[in-house]
Amino acid sequence: MKPFICGLDAALRLIGGKWKPLILFFLARQPMRYGELKRSIEGVSDKMLIQQLKEMEYHGLVSRTDHGEVPPRVDYALTPLGKSLSQTLVPLCEWGEQHQGAIADALADPA
Amino acid sequence: MKPFICGLDAALRLIGGKWKPLILFFLARQPMRYGELKRSIEGVSDKMLIQQLKEMEYHGLVSRTDHGEVPPRVDYALTPLGKSLSQTLVPLCEWGEQHQGAIADALADPA
Repeated sequence: MKPFICGLDAALRLIGGKWKPLILFFLARQPMRYGELKRSIEGVSDKMLIQQLKEMEYHGLVSRTDHGEVPPRVDYALTPLGKSLSQTLVPLCEWGEQHQGAIADALADPA
Repeated sequence: MKPFICGLDAALRLIGGKWKPLILFFLARQPMRYGELKRSIEGVSDKMLIQQLKEMEYHGLVSRTDHGEVPPRVDYALTPLGKSLSQTLVPLCEWGEQHQGAIADALADPA
């Protein structure tokens, strides 16, 4: 493993990429079944979501509970480590809410 | 442009990916010349760094000052929008510092 450049680099190795911060954000509100999570994160494919959840489980951020029922009922929740990490995203989330208009302008295709 | 899922999604559209949070982090300390920035962010290629800086300039997060000298002297700095965004990364950065050991363990290749 490459040494971390700094604390931010270390944190980004765990949640870098497009989907993991959003997974953390939604699971921070409440544990969710797979289908609920998929519906919350519009645009994510099953392949991608399953892959991300597996990595997050492996890295100790997410716990997976299979209730052994038929049809299958599987819940995802944050571990204490995942919860503490999700808390750090609150300011970024609030910033995004406050600046939605400016961000939409910045991302708009040039006329 | 797809509608934002939430504030976090909006913010991540601007700084999603591997390098932009680190660029924000280093430029938040001080304006930097291109070469300094490249040396700070170990592992980034010129092609990638230039591309990221262009996008961040286009999105109003970074300003670029060409001093018109020979050899060229070009400084990069954060705009007020970029500065306010960089502030939101401080908790994530601190979390990464506090958990470096756990993160290194999580990322270690299985024996």
